[in-house]
Amino acid sequence: MKSIKFKNKKLFYLDQTKLPGQEVWRELTTIQSGQKAIKSLRVRGAPLLGVFAAYCICIHLDALSKRKFFFLKQLKKSFDFLKTARPTAVNLFWALDRLDKVVSKNESKTVKEIKEIIIKEAKLIHQEDISTCEKLADFGAALLKNDENILTHCNTGFLATSGQGTALGVIFKAKQQGKNPTVYIDETRPLLQGARLTAWELRKKKIKSFLITDNSAAFLMQKKMIDSIIVGADRIAASGDTANKIGTYNLAVLADYHNIPFYVAAPQSTFDLSLQKGEDIVIEKRDGAEVKKVLGGAFICPAETKALNFAFDLTPSGLITAIITDKGVVYPPYKKNIKKLIKW
Amino acid sequence: MKSIKFKNKKLFYLDQTKLPGQEVWRELTTIQSGQKAIKSLRVRGAPLLGVFAAYCICIHLDALSKRKFFFLKQLKKSFDFLKTARPTAVNLFWALDRLDKVVSKNESKTVKEIKEIIIKEAKLIHQEDISTCEKLADFGAALLKNDENILTHCNTGFLATSGQGTALGVIFKAKQQGKNPTVYIDETRPLLQGARLTAWELRKKKIKSFLITDNSAAFLMQKKMIDSIIVGADRIAASGDTANKIGTYNLAVLADYHNIPFYVAAPQSTFDLSLQKGEDIVIEKRDGAEVKKVLGGAFICPAETKALNFAFDLTPSGLITAIITDKGVVYPPYKKNIKKLIKW
Repeated sequence: MKSIKFKNKKLFYLDQTKLPGQEVWRELTTIQSGQKAIKSLRVRGAPLLGVFAAYCICIHLDALSKRKFFFLKQLKKSFDFLKTARPTAVNLFWALDRLDKVVSKNESKTVKEIKEIIIKEAKLIHQEDISTCEKLADFGAALLKNDENILTHCNTGFLATSGQGTALGVIFKAKQQGKNPTVYIDETRPLLQGARLTAWELRKKKIKSFLITDNSAAFLMQKKMIDSIIVGADRIAASGDTANKIGTYNLAVLADYHNIPFYVAAPQSTFDLSLQKGEDIVIEKRDGAEVKKVLGGAFICPAETKALNFAFDLTPSGLITAIITDKGVVYPPYKKNIKKLIKW
Repeated sequence: MKSIKFKNKKLFYLDQTKLPGQEVWRELTTIQSGQKAIKSLRVRGAPLLGVFAAYCICIHLDALSKRKFFFLKQLKKSFDFLKTARPTAVNLFWALDRLDKVVSKNESKTVKEIKEIIIKEAKLIHQEDISTCEKLADFGAALLKNDENILTHCNTGFLATSGQGTALGVIFKAKQQGKNPTVYIDETRPLLQGARLTAWELRKKKIKSFLITDNSAAFLMQKKMIDSIIVGADRIAASGDTANKIGTYNLAVLADYHNIPFYVAAPQSTFDLSLQKGEDIVIEKRDGAEVKKVLGGAFICPAETKALNFAFDLTPSGLITAIITDKGVVYPPYKKNIKKLIKW
C-alpha cells in the first residue's frame, strides 16, 4: 500500500483529497503542480512531503538549463520555490536541504552527472523513509500491550509516509504481532484526515476501529475507554516541544489529566535541532473557508461568519510521555536525550 | 427573536435543522410530530424543550376523550409518550411533571376546566422561562469584564430557550451593557449547533465572533486568547455535576489546566436534585450516522466505518468555577449551596 510511485523518471501520486470516495492516481509533470499538490493537501503527511519534494525536483531536472552555471542557479530557485508550499512540517525543508548539500558536494561534475546524483539521492531518501517507518514501528509496538485501546489523531499511516507510517505504523506492527489493538479515530476537523484517511487505512488493514468527533475524546478517557494516545509530528524542536495537527495539544492536556501515556511517533527527519523550543516553530494558518465548509460543501454557518483556522498546534514536551523514533524511544529529559540520539 | 410561538391554541416552531440556510416556521398539529420534532432536533435546547413539550400537550388536548376518566388516563399516557423523545435534558421531564401535578390538584374539575388549567400552566412555564433567562443573564453579565474573550459551546441562546438564552443570554446582556464581548464559537460536532445556530444568533445580535473547530480551543487557551468559558447545561445533579453537549467536559479540563474560569449557565428547571451525582444521569447515545455524514451529506469516512456518538458528556462539579442561575450565582461547595438556592 503506497501513496506515491517513482518509475522511469515519472512521478505518480494518490490524490488524498479524493479519499475515501475515490482512489485517484495522478501523474505529476511540473514543479508548479507539485507545489500546488502540497499546498492543496493532495499530497500530505510530514514524512511523505520530504520524499515527494525530492521527487518533484527529479521530474523538474530536464526543464532546467543545460549550462551548469544556470542549471545550479535554477536548481537552487526550485528548492526555494518548493519550500513555499507549507511552512510547518520540517521534512519538506529537510529533504530539499539534503539534495542541496549533495549538489554542493558535486558541483565539479557535469550537469548530467549531477542530475543522476540528485535522482539517486531522492531514491535513497525514499528507501530510507520506508526502512525508518519499519524501525520506528518496531520500537513503538514494544510499548503496547495486548488488546490496547489506542486513540489517534489525523493521519500517520501509509498515506502520510512512503512507508507504512509513523503513529499508525506502530499500530499496524502491533496488529502484525498479534496484539489485537482497537483504535479510536479522532475525525480531525477541519479537513477530516482521521475520518477520511485513517479510517480508510485501518479498514484496509482490518484493524478494529471507531470514528469519534474530536470533542468526545475527553469523555472516552473519563470512561476509561482509552489506554494510550499515539500521534505523529510535523516538527520537533530540540526541547522536544512538538508541532502537529491542530487538536494534538488538546489530547496531550487530556492525557495528562487522565494519566494516560501520550506518545509522539516521528522519524529523525522531523526533528529540527536548529530550533530551541516549540514557540520558534511557524504555525501555518489556513483559509477560514476550510472550517466554514466541510470538504468544500455548503456553508455550515452564516456565509459572513469569520473563522480561525490554525492548521497545527504546539505540544510542550512536558506533556509527552515518550517520542518514538527510528533510532529508539526517547524519554525525558528530552533536551539531553534528543541530542544523544538524533544526528543530522 | 423567538423560536416558538403559541397563539389561538396553535403551536408554531422554527425548524432548527434548516438553519442557518433557511428560516422555516412550521405548525405543529399532533403530539406524534411533536415527539419527532424533538427527536430529530428540529426543536432543541434544554429550556426550550420544557416549554415546547408543555405546548405539545396543549395542542393535543382536543384529541383526548371527553369523558374525564379516559381523558385523565390518555393525558397521563401523553406525558409518558413525550418523555420518550430524549433522555438527557431534564427540562422536558420537569415541564411535563409540572403539568401532571397541576392536573392532579384539579382532578375534581370538569374536562373543559382542566384543559384551560393546562393551557394556563403551559403559558406560565413559557413566561417564566423568558423572565428566568433575563434574571440569569443579569447575574452572569456581572461576572464579565469589559472586552472579555469568551469561549462557548453548542447553542444556548434564543433558539435554545423561549427567552434570550442561558450562556448566550449572559453574553447578549454583557453586549447590551456596553461591555464589548468577543465570542469564540466551538463549531460543536457532530451536529454543528455552534456553527449553524450560535454563529447565526451572534450575527443577529451584532456581536464580534469567530468560529473555530472544537479541537482548536486548547491552542487558543495556550495562546491566552480566551478569558472565560460559558456553557449551558442539560441536567445538573445535586452535587453540581453537569451533563451538557459532548465536548463540554473537554473544555472544563482545558479550563482547569489553563486556569481559566469555567461557568455553567442554567435555570432552576435544569437541576435534578433527585440525582445525587453526574454518573446517575442518562447520557443519550445517538446514531453513528450523525458523525459519519456531516449534516446528512456524503460520507466523510468509509461507509462501513463504525462511529461512536455520545450526544452529551459529564463535567464533574470540581471543574466548574460557578453555576449561573436565575436565583443567583452558585459557588462551591455545590452540594450545600445548590440545596440552599434551588427549590422545586
